[in-house]
Amino acid sequence: MATAGKVIKCKAAVAWESNKPLTIEEIEVEPPQANQVRVKIVATGVCRTDLFYLYETENKDLFPMVLGHEGAGIVESVGPGVTEFQPGDKVVPLIVSQCRECRFCKSPRTNQCEKAWDVVPHNVSTAPTSKLNCRGKKLLQFMGISTFSQYSVVNQIALAKIDPAAPLEKVCLLGCGICTGFGAAVNNAQVEPDSTCAVFGLGAVGLAAIMGCKYAGAKRIIAVDINADKFEKATEFGATDFVNPKDHDKPISKVLSEMTNGGVDFSLECVGDVKLMRSALESCVPAWGVSVIVGWTDKEDFCARPTDLISGRTWKGSIFGGFKGKDGVAEMVQAYMNKKIKLDEFITHNMPLDHINEAIELLKQGKSIRTVLSVSPQ
Amino acid sequence: MATAGKVIKCKAAVAWESNKPLTIEEIEVEPPQANQVRVKIVATGVCRTDLFYLYETENKDLFPMVLGHEGAGIVESVGPGVTEFQPGDKVVPLIVSQCRECRFCKSPRTNQCEKAWDVVPHNVSTAPTSKLNCRGKKLLQFMGISTFSQYSVVNQIALAKIDPAAPLEKVCLLGCGICTGFGAAVNNAQVEPDSTCAVFGLGAVGLAAIMGCKYAGAKRIIAVDINADKFEKATEFGATDFVNPKDHDKPISKVLSEMTNGGVDFSLECVGDVKLMRSALESCVPAWGVSVIVGWTDKEDFCARPTDLISGRTWKGSIFGGFKGKDGVAEMVQAYMNKKIKLDEFITHNMPLDHINEAIELLKQGKSIRTVLSVSPQ
Repeated sequence: MATAGKVIKCKAAVAWESNKPLTIEEIEVEPPQANQVRVKIVATGVCRTDLFYLYETENKDLFPMVLGHEGAGIVESVGPGVTEFQPGDKVVPLIVSQCRECRFCKSPRTNQCEKAWDVVPHNVSTAPTSKLNCRGKKLLQFMGISTFSQYSVVNQIALAKIDPAAPLEKVCLLGCGICTGFGAAVNNAQVEPDSTCAVFGLGAVGLAAIMGCKYAGAKRIIAVDINADKFEKATEFGATDFVNPKDHDKPISKVLSEMTNGGVDFSLECVGDVKLMRSALESCVPAWGVSVIVGWTDKEDFCARPTDLISGRTWKGSIFGGFKGKDGVAEMVQAYMNKKIKLDEFITHNMPLDHINEAIELLKQGKSIRTVLSVSPQ
Repeated sequence: MATAGKVIKCKAAVAWESNKPLTIEEIEVEPPQANQVRVKIVATGVCRTDLFYLYETENKDLFPMVLGHEGAGIVESVGPGVTEFQPGDKVVPLIVSQCRECRFCKSPRTNQCEKAWDVVPHNVSTAPTSKLNCRGKKLLQFMGISTFSQYSVVNQIALAKIDPAAPLEKVCLLGCGICTGFGAAVNNAQVEPDSTCAVFGLGAVGLAAIMGCKYAGAKRIIAVDINADKFEKATEFGATDFVNPKDHDKPISKVLSEMTNGGVDFSLECVGDVKLMRSALESCVPAWGVSVIVGWTDKEDFCARPTDLISGRTWKGSIFGGFKGKDGVAEMVQAYMNKKIKLDEFITHNMPLDHINEAIELLKQGKSIRTVLSVSPQ
C-alpha cells in the first residue's frame, strides 16, 4: 500500500483525561515495527469496559489514551517478522492475545497468554509501545488495541485473522462483548443440557450469556435486571423467566432459590458489581452450583461467607469467555456466518466515529445494547 | 443386647456453655426411634471444629451440647425401620449424611445430602431430635452425632458401616479430619500428576491434604505454617518444600509465586482463616489455579479482587473432602487396611475421655495433631 512505511495521519477519539467527553483529533500513527501490524479499523463497538476506564477506575496514569477494544478492520501493513498477516486481511484485534508458544497457550485449561503479560501489561499498553501520537504526545493504547482510531498498531499475537467474507460492521462485536458472554456460559460455566441458569445484567454481555446458556441446552434461563425494558430483548436470546429485583423486598438470591427449589445450577454476573457477584453466588444451589464473574471491575473486593463455597458451590471468573483469542474469534465468526449465533440483534444503534460521545451516553443510560461506530471507510 | 429398648446411663463430656472446660457427667441416652441407631462410641478424635463451636462461634443457642464428631463405635441397638445396621456392626457416625435417595445423593457432582438439611439443620441437631439428657435437660447433639459420649443416637442416614476388622481407635479419624483433607485434594481440587500444590496449615486436615496431593501424583508440595515444628511431620506425609510466613516480609502469595514461576496449580486452605483463604487463592497461578477452602469458619466473609478470578482462577470449597458419607468412609477404611493411606501417623496422643480438656488444650496450643480418646471399652 502507498502508506506502508510512512506515518499515517487520521482521526481518532482521544481521552485526554478521565471523566470528560472524548475529543475527535487528527493523530499520527507510526508504521509497525517488528512483530507489529498496522490495521485500518473499519468498525467498533462501544463496551462498558471503555466507560469503566474513562469514568470509574482510580488509575490516573492512563491518559492521554485512545479507548476502544471491540473492533474489526483490514491489515494496512506489517512490520518485520510478521508472516501470519498480509495487507488486505480482515482482522479483529484481541483483548486476550494468543502467541501459541507459551505454557498457557499450549494448555487447554486456560485462554490466557503468558506473553500478553509483557506485551499488554495490566490491560493498558505502556507508552513506549504505543505508535499513536497527537500534538507531540504519545497516546496510550487501551488494552494495546485502541479501536476508537482509524488506524492502530497491534502486536501480531493480539490479532485474529477472520473469514474474508465476514461483515466487519457486525463481527467487530466478537472482539469483546459477545464472545465474553457467550463463552462465559459455554466455556467457563460449562452450562449443561436441561440445567437452570440465572444471568445478572442484560447488557450485551448478559444477553450473549443468555444466548450461550440456550446454545448449551439450558431448559430454564432466568434473566435478572432492574431495567424491565430489557426483558423483551432477553426473550429473543432465550430467556424464559424474568426477575426485577425492584419488585421484591427480599434478597434476590432468596427469590431465585424459591423459584428453583434451592438455587440455580449456573449463574453469571454480567455487570461488574461486587454485591451482585455475591448475589449470583448465593443464588446457586449449594451442592453443585457454579457462579461465574463476567463483569469487570478492579475497584473493590467481592466477598462471601466461607460456608457458601464449603457447601459445594464453585466460583469462577471469565475473561473473553474463555476463548483463546485467535482461535476463538475465527470460530465465532464462522458460527455467525453459519447462523449458529446471533450478532445483528445486539446492534441497536449505528453512527459514525464523530458521534462517539452520543454512543457513550446511550450506553451509560441503558438506552443501547450495542452502538456500532463506522470508523474508516472500507 | 440387654440394654436394647432401655435408657442407658453412661459418661459424656458436656459443654454447658461456651468458652468453658467440658464437664464429665453421667447422662441418659434414650433408645433409638424410627430410622435411628444407638451406637456405643469406642474412640473419638478431637477436631478443631469442636473447638470452633466451643470457643469461637457467635451462635449461643447451642448449649448445653455434647461435642465430638470424629468417632467410631459399635451398634448397640436399632430403631424401627432400620435394616442396614445390626447390633455389633462397626460404624463411623457421619458429619455428611447419605440417604441414597435425594437428588444430591443421586448426583455424582456433590457429596451433600438434601435430607441432611432436615435431619441435621445448620450442623447442630435441634433439641427435639436429641436423645441425650442430663440433669433433666436435653443435650444438643453436635452435628447430630456427639461422639464425646459413651453412647449416642444417630439417624441411619448419618452412619457408615465399616470393615469388622477395622481398628476403631484408628479409623475414628476418618469421621472427619483425614477424609476432609485427603478428599479436598483428591476429589475437590482434583490435583493432577506432576502439579505443584500449596497447603496452608499443618494440622491433621492440612497433613491429610498433603497426603492427598502426594497420592494424586503432585511433584511439588509446599507446606505453609507459622509453626516450624510441624514441618518434620509434613515431610512424612509428602511435603517437599516449607514456607514459614514469619520468615518473610512480603505477602506469602508473592513468596509462593516467586518460588513457582507465577503461582501454584492447586492450593488448599486448611485453617479456617479468611485472610489465609485469600492468600491461598492469590498464590495460585492466574491462568488455571484452583484454590479450595477446607478450613471451617462462619464468622467472617472471605474476600478477593474480581480480577483474581477473572484472570482464570477457580475458588471452591470442600466439606468432608467431597466424599459421599457412607461410601467414602467405607472406602477410606479399606484404603487404610490396604496401606494405601496413613492414619497412625496423625495420632500424637492417646488418653481416656476423662482427660478431654487436656486434649483440647494440646490442640489449642498446636502441640498435638490428633489425640484419640478412648470413650467406651469395646
